[in-house]
Amino acid sequence: MTSELRAHMPLTDDTAFLLARANARSLAATHAGLADHGLRVRSYSVLALAVAEARLSQRDIAEYLWLDPSQVVSLVDDLQRRGLVTREPDENDRRAKVVVATEAGRRLHRDAARSVAERERETLETLDAAEQQRLRELLLRLAFPV
Amino acid sequence: MTSELRAHMPLTDDTAFLLARANARSLAATHAGLADHGLRVRSYSVLALAVAEARLSQRDIAEYLWLDPSQVVSLVDDLQRRGLVTREPDENDRRAKVVVATEAGRRLHRDAARSVAERERETLETLDAAEQQRLRELLLRLAFPV
Repeated sequence: MTSELRAHMPLTDDTAFLLARANARSLAATHAGLADHGLRVRSYSVLALAVAEARLSQRDIAEYLWLDPSQVVSLVDDLQRRGLVTREPDENDRRAKVVVATEAGRRLHRDAARSVAERERETLETLDAAEQQRLRELLLRLAFPV
Repeated sequence: MTSELRAHMPLTDDTAFLLARANARSLAATHAGLADHGLRVRSYSVLALAVAEARLSQRDIAEYLWLDPSQVVSLVDDLQRRGLVTREPDENDRRAKVVVATEAGRRLHRDAARSVAERERETLETLDAAEQQRLRELLLRLAFPV
């Protein structure tokens, strides 16, 4: 960054701008961590939810990841073709399907998560553990208003 | 959100996920605030930097907003065509141009910023003023590591 820019640092009182830039750095780290695993950020997020055993429908996944439902259908199609997830009947709603990780999906997720965590560690290291925890608490309340 | 999802809340210990979701909410609010002003989030951000009087080059703007330099050129082209910014010689580097808001650009920015602030207020209201300040401090250190 030029000294000109460092001296001014415009918009740094703007939460939306700071969120966008912090997210851009975090996305770049996630993307780099996923590069060797044949996953992109969105397919990785869907896989992570499938692994989480919440038995979420595609509609739940779309809402949770703030994606369009049609995007999620195509992400799940792709993961299913690769044998990483299956669609199973939803016990609570016979018209819906839930997305569940296969054993291969769990393995790939575990490996990818390890790579992502390494990259994220570099991104987050400007904050100590307590600050990271505080940041997550504050973000959680922004991300999921009650 | 379904009760199923509320009960599980997967990934909420994942800073990258929380950042992405909080940013998605914030972007949606910004987008809604800009809708009546003929601006999109990226052109609004470029205009905001032009208004900030930091006399930034297009390259500085690209770095600051984490955008591709070619995207910034086309955003500045568009803003200039609309009479909202001009390109002026950079006093520090004769090969570069800095992007400066016109009077019309300042007016539009002021009106748009007001609309955006209203929408953002709704997004941020789950945090009190001190918490919002703390969040900005933590995000600043993530967004701009020293």
